[in-house]
Amino acid sequence: MILEAVILQVKQGMEKEYEVAFREASKIISTMKGYISHDLQRCIETEGKYLLLVKWETLEDHTVGFRESNEYHEWKKLLHHFYDPFPLVEHFEQVKL
Amino acid sequence: MILEAVILQVKQGMEKEYEVAFREASKIISTMKGYISHDLQRCIETEGKYLLLVKWETLEDHTVGFRESNEYHEWKKLLHHFYDPFPLVEHFEQVKL
Repeated sequence: MILEAVILQVKQGMEKEYEVAFREASKIISTMKGYISHDLQRCIETEGKYLLLVKWETLEDHTVGFRESNEYHEWKKLLHHFYDPFPLVEHFEQVKL
Repeated sequence: MILEAVILQVKQGMEKEYEVAFREASKIISTMKGYISHDLQRCIETEGKYLLLVKWETLEDHTVGFRESNEYHEWKKLLHHFYDPFPLVEHFEQVKL
C-alpha cells in the first residue's frame, strides 16, 4: 500500500467552493482501480491550506492508472484552478513500528 | 478528532538510526491522554523525508497535554537531533466528504 500525500493551498476566499468541488471530485477518484481510501484535511493554523491523503494499492495505480485516465481530466477540471501555488504530489510507504 | 501532520527531514545517512529511535519514541506517545493512533510514512521520492501523522482526540491533547509533559522531554531527546531543518507541526480537521 502506498500513501499519496499532497499539501494544497487554495486561493483566498475560495475555500467553501473548493470543498464543494472536492466532494464532486471524490466520486471520480473512488471508482479508480487500486484506490483504497482518501480524505481531505483542513489546516487549523493556516487558512486555505489542506492535506489530501489517498491510499493506493500500488504506486502505479496512481501515477499511471489514475493520471493517464479520462477520469483524471475530469478531476483536474474540477480542482486544479483552485490551487496557488500548484501542489507537489509525493508518495510514502509506511514505516513498520 | 484532530490530525497532527508533520513533514520531517532527517539528516543524510541517519535514516536507519532514526527509524530505530522512532520505534522507541512510539511507545512514549501512545501512552498519552487523548492519543488515538499514529503512523510514520517514508517518502518514496526524497531520501530522508518522512510524514508523521498522529490522531488526537482534541487539539489540546497534543499542544498542552503532550507538549507540556515529562514524556515530551523524552520524545525530544530521542528524535529532535535527527531533524534538519527543524519541522513545522500543523493540525488538521477532516473535511466531511
